[in-house]
Amino acid sequence: MAAPDTGAGAVTMPLIDFQTHPDRYRHWKLEVDGPIGYLTMRVEETGGLVPGYELKLNSYDLGVDIELHDAVQRLRFEHPGVKAVVIRSGHDRVFSAGANIRMLSQSSHGHKVNFCKFTNETRLAIEDATGHSGQTYLAAVSGSAAGGGYELALAAQHLMLVDDRTSAVSFPEAPLLAVLPATGGLTRIVDKRKVRRDLADVFSTLEEGVKGQRALQWRLIDELVPKSTWQARVTERAKALAARSDRPDDGPGVPLVPLDRTIDGDQVRYRWVEIDIDRGRRVATVMLRAPESAAPAAPADALALGSRFWPLAFARELDDAILHLRVNEPDIGLVVFRSAGDPAAVLSHDALLVAHPNHWFLREVRLLLKRTLKRIDLTARSLIALVEPGSAFAGTLAEVVFAADRSVMVEGSLDGSPARASLALSELNFGWYPMSNDLSRLATRFLGDPGHLDGLRAKVGQPLDAGQALELGLVTFTFDRTDWADETRIMIEERASFSPDALTGLEANLRFAGPETMETKIFGRLTAWQNWIFQRPNAAGEEGALRRYGTGVQPRFDRNRV
Amino acid sequence: MAAPDTGAGAVTMPLIDFQTHPDRYRHWKLEVDGPIGYLTMRVEETGGLVPGYELKLNSYDLGVDIELHDAVQRLRFEHPGVKAVVIRSGHDRVFSAGANIRMLSQSSHGHKVNFCKFTNETRLAIEDATGHSGQTYLAAVSGSAAGGGYELALAAQHLMLVDDRTSAVSFPEAPLLAVLPATGGLTRIVDKRKVRRDLADVFSTLEEGVKGQRALQWRLIDELVPKSTWQARVTERAKALAARSDRPDDGPGVPLVPLDRTIDGDQVRYRWVEIDIDRGRRVATVMLRAPESAAPAAPADALALGSRFWPLAFARELDDAILHLRVNEPDIGLVVFRSAGDPAAVLSHDALLVAHPNHWFLREVRLLLKRTLKRIDLTARSLIALVEPGSAFAGTLAEVVFAADRSVMVEGSLDGSPARASLALSELNFGWYPMSNDLSRLATRFLGDPGHLDGLRAKVGQPLDAGQALELGLVTFTFDRTDWADETRIMIEERASFSPDALTGLEANLRFAGPETMETKIFGRLTAWQNWIFQRPNAAGEEGALRRYGTGVQPRFDRNRV
Repeated sequence: MAAPDTGAGAVTMPLIDFQTHPDRYRHWKLEVDGPIGYLTMRVEETGGLVPGYELKLNSYDLGVDIELHDAVQRLRFEHPGVKAVVIRSGHDRVFSAGANIRMLSQSSHGHKVNFCKFTNETRLAIEDATGHSGQTYLAAVSGSAAGGGYELALAAQHLMLVDDRTSAVSFPEAPLLAVLPATGGLTRIVDKRKVRRDLADVFSTLEEGVKGQRALQWRLIDELVPKSTWQARVTERAKALAARSDRPDDGPGVPLVPLDRTIDGDQVRYRWVEIDIDRGRRVATVMLRAPESAAPAAPADALALGSRFWPLAFARELDDAILHLRVNEPDIGLVVFRSAGDPAAVLSHDALLVAHPNHWFLREVRLLLKRTLKRIDLTARSLIALVEPGSAFAGTLAEVVFAADRSVMVEGSLDGSPARASLALSELNFGWYPMSNDLSRLATRFLGDPGHLDGLRAKVGQPLDAGQALELGLVTFTFDRTDWADETRIMIEERASFSPDALTGLEANLRFAGPETMETKIFGRLTAWQNWIFQRPNAAGEEGALRRYGTGVQPRFDRNRV
Repeated sequence: MAAPDTGAGAVTMPLIDFQTHPDRYRHWKLEVDGPIGYLTMRVEETGGLVPGYELKLNSYDLGVDIELHDAVQRLRFEHPGVKAVVIRSGHDRVFSAGANIRMLSQSSHGHKVNFCKFTNETRLAIEDATGHSGQTYLAAVSGSAAGGGYELALAAQHLMLVDDRTSAVSFPEAPLLAVLPATGGLTRIVDKRKVRRDLADVFSTLEEGVKGQRALQWRLIDELVPKSTWQARVTERAKALAARSDRPDDGPGVPLVPLDRTIDGDQVRYRWVEIDIDRGRRVATVMLRAPESAAPAAPADALALGSRFWPLAFARELDDAILHLRVNEPDIGLVVFRSAGDPAAVLSHDALLVAHPNHWFLREVRLLLKRTLKRIDLTARSLIALVEPGSAFAGTLAEVVFAADRSVMVEGSLDGSPARASLALSELNFGWYPMSNDLSRLATRFLGDPGHLDGLRAKVGQPLDAGQALELGLVTFTFDRTDWADETRIMIEERASFSPDALTGLEANLRFAGPETMETKIFGRLTAWQNWIFQRPNAAGEEGALRRYGTGVQPRFDRNRV
């Protein structure tokens, strides 16, 4: 290899599991008090994912964030009656010191990037709950919220700070560590909170941060509260936010039961999703299985199925599969999506989701599918969809075809049997699963011809053969059975021969045409700059600030401006 | 230094001069035939800026692009009657092979980044001429337009391709060199031309490119022309584009006379702009001088002044000063803007520009000021404006204050004399100089309080003292004469102590709040990813594709996906 991509400590990462449960949390406590949920952060210092660092001062690593992600999901599904969520610290004098520096400095470049991506997605999931799910987040900051700690608080809809001598918000990354507050931080202060850019500049270079009235005046927080009334005011605020929710007052939630998953060498098996890894070709084939029967008739029936309801089970499995590939299989450069089963059964579930957009459970399921599909868009692997005879790319599953960098479809059958490849659209393809750019995948695809969407809408529910799908621009290429095996093999081998970095950059630029949003700015502009900085000796080199932090030795910088 | 930022060949760059003249062009020919201008590219193989590479196949380096930039400026000012411009090749079988690979592989990281930034700005200047100046560009592509060659053609409003066996457009960067087509290429194909994303993906991995009907069907070109009618069709098209222009049919242009500039050690002196470099502190102070008298009464008088007309002379000098600092002074991390002279004289010139928005010459001057101010926004140096007694930050000059990362103002006078620091707005501050995000600097600054702009508008023309400027949010801090020297010194020293890379990333994220445009996407998302790739061993390492290109030895890639 040209240059092994290792961090300083060259710590070997164990298999990282994104599944957990509140019973096993080491760093967070999830409590519910009527309509208010409380997420209390009290990070266990010795509870890091790998050895080599202590999680002091509520600093976090990926393991801490996996628990937060789990808690955010469970609050939505298991606690329908929770209408506002308070994020707070379990420590007296510190809210959170942000991402753990020693963890960052000993991590490989790839791990740093994946860690930041996941923490970003979790903070966006918090905003998604506030924006679409009737579960509004409030950050109750007492003590110091530094760097990633303040970035976490920024994800909340309402940001409260105690007015005392120690509670402050800060971005010490640039002055102290020579990196950026890149878990959305720089973007959220100027784009979400609309802090004036020169004040944002001062704030982001002020190691000790800003507190009190100045924090309020600069729009860094929403509310400043005297210590004497702090607890009462937080509760009062949370109740006020809860009062605006359309979530049910009570009723059973849907327990997110453990995923039915086995990892066995190059095979990962879930109930509806299967991964097969071909290490020689650096390809993972992800098979997506349609439900085995039509959707239940009514929301109550879906609710009774709980986490066995196919769209929910499928979304949870696909989400886990994508995360697994991202962090545990870094040298697999290409993901090939296939599908199997009855497209009509997928369309039937889509129809149920469309018919009850505001039923709390069906809405949560749809929003989880939306977030999972976004996670695919944001995955730095080449994505190819194969539409074959017997495949079930319809509606929700067809979104995977539109998320792929390219898609190929069999013309007719592969073996002379009557099974012919087809593709179908549902109402859900037209705006219910927006990408990060806030457009549907079809609208992004046909930016050059928006009127084409009307024509496509007229085809909803119809099986489209390869000729039609190609004509309608829904697939990239079609091949007949004579050419199929060779053409797809060559396409996959050629893709695997290119530089992984060039492909990451290429895909990040081509996938998000059209408008940029706060979300795309975080993943485009902010993340790309941070990744660049993570490669620069001034941050990550032997004498760089990340590596020298805490050693008592000043970093040495190459002073050239680039 | 932590790690010297040198390229492979460690070629020392000579002082790079952005001033040139058609009489001295080695690579381009500028011809005018009535309303049509022709820019013909015939790069001199041995005419590279530095030794070490040959500019074969119309490939280019910064020197080639400096000529193009000069020609684009001169067409606007010196040729008012030119209403359409044809970009074409002086070679038979090649349009342009894009940026020269050996030049890239031997350049330092900083030079690569600055080269790409300048070429991007020049292509945007071409689009600015088309969009705002009535001078529409047409790319007449015969032969192969590869990589940066096609990116140049993409800047044109109308892209014509010969329908023959060899003429093709291509992006071979990713497959061949492990880098991106990042002179706007990836952004322009999906955002400007709205090529379908999966087709864009195929195109960007197809070394040999796309030609003929397929190029047209994929929206990669606007028009495909048989060889037999090529010349006639190009002329016909150019005439049709020219017919839509509001530029004058004839009349004298304004010769862009050589800048009055002396570079003497740490001092650079122009007529209205002066640079003083403090190498110890890594600071460049840029003094901006107001005109010495009120504006001429009418456009004809301004035209008679020609390149001595203050706003034009000032813009050309400031533009050159910024470019000089960028490429010739890489270790100067901070630019301090000061000004001097009579603010009323600036406001008087602003009033003339506002009064005649569509007079061709005054419009060109205003558009050049706009582009120069954008160049400041896009300069990867910390920018601080000092508003002092005697300064002339009014209207157009005040834009520099709003472009700065932070601005500080003296409360009252510095020495007890009657001269007090003041700041003034003009109509031009309200939308006439949009940033890359298409908002004015004031609108970007007050995104959180858009109504504030109305209040500011009521202050147009009034001198605002430090108290008012602070209250109105126009400056970041004010200091009285007791604190001024210490506070500004500390601010500057502290800034200079931070990691240059972290500051570059910080500023790139904080300066462009609000909407993203094709232009900000090019400089944000696309450029940031390319800079990351330029740091990665897969491209720039000893065994990377950029270094191995042309050696006959295959590059070796770290296969981990990040």
